[in-house]
Amino acid sequence: MSEILDLLGIFVFALTGALMGVRKRLDVVGMVVLAEMTALGGGVVRDLILNVRPAAFQSLGYVLVPVAATVIVFFWHPHVARVMPLILVLDAAGLGLFCAVGTEKALEYGLAPLHAALLGVVTGIGGGMLRDMLAGEIPTLLYDRQLYAVPAMLGSGVMAALSAYGLHGWPATLAAAVLAFGLRIMAMRRKWRAPLARGSGSGE
Amino acid sequence: MSEILDLLGIFVFALTGALMGVRKRLDVVGMVVLAEMTALGGGVVRDLILNVRPAAFQSLGYVLVPVAATVIVFFWHPHVARVMPLILVLDAAGLGLFCAVGTEKALEYGLAPLHAALLGVVTGIGGGMLRDMLAGEIPTLLYDRQLYAVPAMLGSGVMAALSAYGLHGWPATLAAAVLAFGLRIMAMRRKWRAPLARGSGSGE
Amino acid sequence: MSEILDLLGIFVFALTGALMGVRKRLDVVGMVVLAEMTALGGGVVRDLILNVRPAAFQSLGYVLVPVAATVIVFFWHPHVARVMPLILVLDAAGLGLFCAVGTEKALEYGLAPLHAALLGVVTGIGGGMLRDMLAGEIPTLLYDRQLYAVPAMLGSGVMAALSAYGLHGWPATLAAAVLAFGLRIMAMRRKWRAPLARGSGSGE
Repeated sequence: MSEILDLLGIFVFALTGALMGVRKRLDVVGMVVLAEMTALGGGVVRDLILNVRPAAFQSLGYVLVPVAATVIVFFWHPHVARVMPLILVLDAAGLGLFCAVGTEKALEYGLAPLHAALLGVVTGIGGGMLRDMLAGEIPTLLYDRQLYAVPAMLGSGVMAALSAYGLHGWPATLAAAVLAFGLRIMAMRRKWRAPLARGSGSGE
Repeated sequence: MSEILDLLGIFVFALTGALMGVRKRLDVVGMVVLAEMTALGGGVVRDLILNVRPAAFQSLGYVLVPVAATVIVFFWHPHVARVMPLILVLDAAGLGLFCAVGTEKALEYGLAPLHAALLGVVTGIGGGMLRDMLAGEIPTLLYDRQLYAVPAMLGSGVMAALSAYGLHGWPATLAAAVLAFGLRIMAMRRKWRAPLARGSGSGE
Repeated sequence: MSEILDLLGIFVFALTGALMGVRKRLDVVGMVVLAEMTALGGGVVRDLILNVRPAAFQSLGYVLVPVAATVIVFFWHPHVARVMPLILVLDAAGLGLFCAVGTEKALEYGLAPLHAALLGVVTGIGGGMLRDMLAGEIPTLLYDRQLYAVPAMLGSGVMAALSAYGLHGWPATLAAAVLAFGLRIMAMRRKWRAPLARGSGSGE
């Protein structure tokens, strides 16, 4: 079950990578590289920091699912782009799942709650940041004022807090993931904005 | 012998890094940083993922050869640029060698064939991608439609397949490297092109 | 004492990250990401290469100090920018400290002197390079011809040499850090310039 959710998250993240590839006019190689990096990048960085062999290099599905996402986008990208609202919702679900699972794994490997939550955030947002950098852009989440990292911080923080109070297992993971997902969806619906430093261009 | 081939591959990759430094008007520090990252980046990422100390930090030659390449480019870059066709051929040889050796090392450390091949590709193309990103450009191999990653995939895949059938050692490595090299050279000669997604700018 | 110096270095590096965030009109999330990456990036890469769990994920202060630096820059960045000359001096001190401490740690973990010095340089300059790349710019130190990496090379080299002659502990670290700091300050004062390759745009 958890494996299936993981693969679904990887699939959606890979879709956003491959779509970015189309938007930047990359060829099919560029599309598959972006799909793999978006889907697996956050988890690989997390595992490197935990000093364990990355999970992405121990599972067949993790590597092949982004290839499947690339094939779909390659042949049917206008259709895929048309369901972008759905993709954004699924991406929010992937974000929630990845930050909760990332925090959980970091706790299992003995990190303190704050550091585990930080690594959960890295798991959730790292792949998307790599995607944007590879595509020659400043990572969107650094400047677009939409709340993307903040829901990841909420989910990771809740996961770490629940664990500190002895609550483990899938109910805790699910609760943390759903909270992050909910905040991300609310922030998109209500157009909540992250603040800019005073005098930093808000008058332009 | 294998050490000498390794150093030759590192030397050629470092030349392309230092030449990129000249093209982007970097100073000598920027040239040497690009040379080191191009030459050693792919192998360092491979070793981090394998969870072993990077080979580049255990060999004197690996670190010093890029410095030598930088000195040559610094003083004689117009001459070096004039032999660019030769450099492209040697770069293709380096690509073949690195993907075969990278796959082999990953297999030795217990990765499954598919993952070992993936890591071989990372070894071959990682340094050049880092070079382009440091120089402020989208990695060339993501969009230029030339086959650069595809020969690396072929070589790494063949290496993993040979190993799965019990064929190890330098004949297997050589065969995989030569196949990747050959495909890369053929692709350059015949101007083979990687496909773009339909409607993705080919009509513009 | 050494912990306090470390935190001071992290604080100053984080200030430069958060200020870059203001300059590029990032929101508060982008500012804090840049502050953390600038302050901790070099040390994390060093520890990944040493194959140990990064120090940044074992200390509360390392993670929280960049948050504090971000808060200060967020509310008072015009004042912070006004003391930029002071920040540049403190940044030079941080550079000296980080390259000396980084080399020392690499030696402790058994690296040869040359490789330890290389890793010391990575510790000193890695965070700033990540900051610039995340902000969508070519790392400044690659092209601006100011001596920034060179003082790090001096400090790291001296640290490795002192250690090779049996001189360890804080006096050696201090000597190496002060030398790097001094060269950086001299280079800024006297506008020393790193050379460009001949014909590489110096006539423009």
